Amino acid sequence: MSDMPATWTQDNQIAMLCYPRMTILDLIGPQYMFASLMGATVHLVAKTRDPITSDTGVTIVPTATFDEVPRDLTVLFAPGGTDGTLAAMRDDVTRNWVADRGSRAQYVTSVCTGSLILSAAGLLRGYNATCHWAGLSALSEFGATPVDARIVKDRNRITGAGVTAGLDFGLQMLAELRDRTYAEGVQLMCEYDPHPPFNAGSVHTAPIHVRAMIQAMVAPFPGMVRDVAREIGVSAG
Amino acid sequence: MSDMPATWTQDNQIAMLCYPRMTILDLIGPQYMFASLMGATVHLVAKTRDPITSDTGVTIVPTATFDEVPRDLTVLFAPGGTDGTLAAMRDDVTRNWVADRGSRAQYVTSVCTGSLILSAAGLLRGYNATCHWAGLSALSEFGATPVDARIVKDRNRITGAGVTAGLDFGLQMLAELRDRTYAEGVQLMCEYDPHPPFNAGSVHTAPIHVRAMIQAMVAPFPGMVRDVAREIGVSAG
Repeated sequence: MSDMPATWTQDNQIAMLCYPRMTILDLIGPQYMFASLMGATVHLVAKTRDPITSDTGVTIVPTATFDEVPRDLTVLFAPGGTDGTLAAMRDDVTRNWVADRGSRAQYVTSVCTGSLILSAAGLLRGYNATCHWAGLSALSEFGATPVDARIVKDRNRITGAGVTAGLDFGLQMLAELRDRTYAEGVQLMCEYDPHPPFNAGSVHTAPIHVRAMIQAMVAPFPGMVRDVAREIGVSAG
Repeated sequence: MSDMPATWTQDNQIAMLCYPRMTILDLIGPQYMFASLMGATVHLVAKTRDPITSDTGVTIVPTATFDEVPRDLTVLFAPGGTDGTLAAMRDDVTRNWVADRGSRAQYVTSVCTGSLILSAAGLLRGYNATCHWAGLSALSEFGATPVDARIVKDRNRITGAGVTAGLDFGLQMLAELRDRTYAEGVQLMCEYDPHPPFNAGSVHTAPIHVRAMIQAMVAPFPGMVRDVAREIGVSAG
């Protein structure tokens, strides 16, 4: 529209890491928000342009390889997952690319266990950060301070909690990169007026039998992260 | 886990329609939920298996063509969009497939303007339904009764409001297809404990200047839907 502020259009370069068995909702919530940024380019970046299948069976096609993405980014973003995330943390090429782009990016960001990938690349040492609740304690393996919150901002590191936190995170990023009115406009466009039919979305609110069931499922995860930390030689010590 | 109820595993066949320039967050929110159903098969269905690019530039690969999907479905689902959705409504092959599968599906469902595709296929005539707020009034072009709500259930038709309503819709579907405990477990797993940083997600709560700006952008949409309704000869009359 002709009466929009000139500052609403900016040549942002946003790189969203993609890897096999990532949780695609971690990626797509924020991608909706980033894609709304006038003037921005949103790269879906992977080692190659081969299609990538998520942990829920959705196959997407990356738009750029690691080498093709600009060296200087406005935003570096990492989505989470479970075994696919551990594999990405173990992968030298992925870790080195994240460390390199993250060293210069204006914002270094993640949703869910994506913060463990940032950590494995050494980007969260000495920072407050959050993660999916099932992996939160494991951040300390890499010298980060775990914070139980929906979104944690520490200097230019902005991390979101599990999966659906990507919506809250994405709107927060729009306010960072533009302003509150811009973010509110996009919120109205995607009708983000949540009405969860149940109140089980946090370990603090879920019924005890639900929490016990899911906690048992994810209990091995922090130990698996610790193993990766030792293997790659990045630790808090 | 060994102590899960036997009824939690069921051979559900879930078909999620995919088409060019759909809004991929409409698809991926519910897909996360459906993919959690033990025993279920979630098909990402399109006219061909060629990659499809969404309105935010995400390219996905369908898992099945219209002909490959089972004739009898547990759930038929349609995501929304804007011009891509109008094109899907105009497309005879898409409309006929939706009408055919919808005539036998146990649940006929949508998020966002996906309900306009169901309508164009004749599946919402005489039903209460919802839609993205920008397209809600247009449901009446097809003999449906628009309801301003996050999720609307009328017999076996379950429709969700715009984009992010897919999360609320998806959890509701898990309770329909399994039970409340199952849905709550998945809610905890995806940490759906929303904390929108702003309160602009509904036309009833957005600041007036934000609402005016976005309403001006989407104002032409109902008229475009009316044109499609006339063109394809499906109308309320």
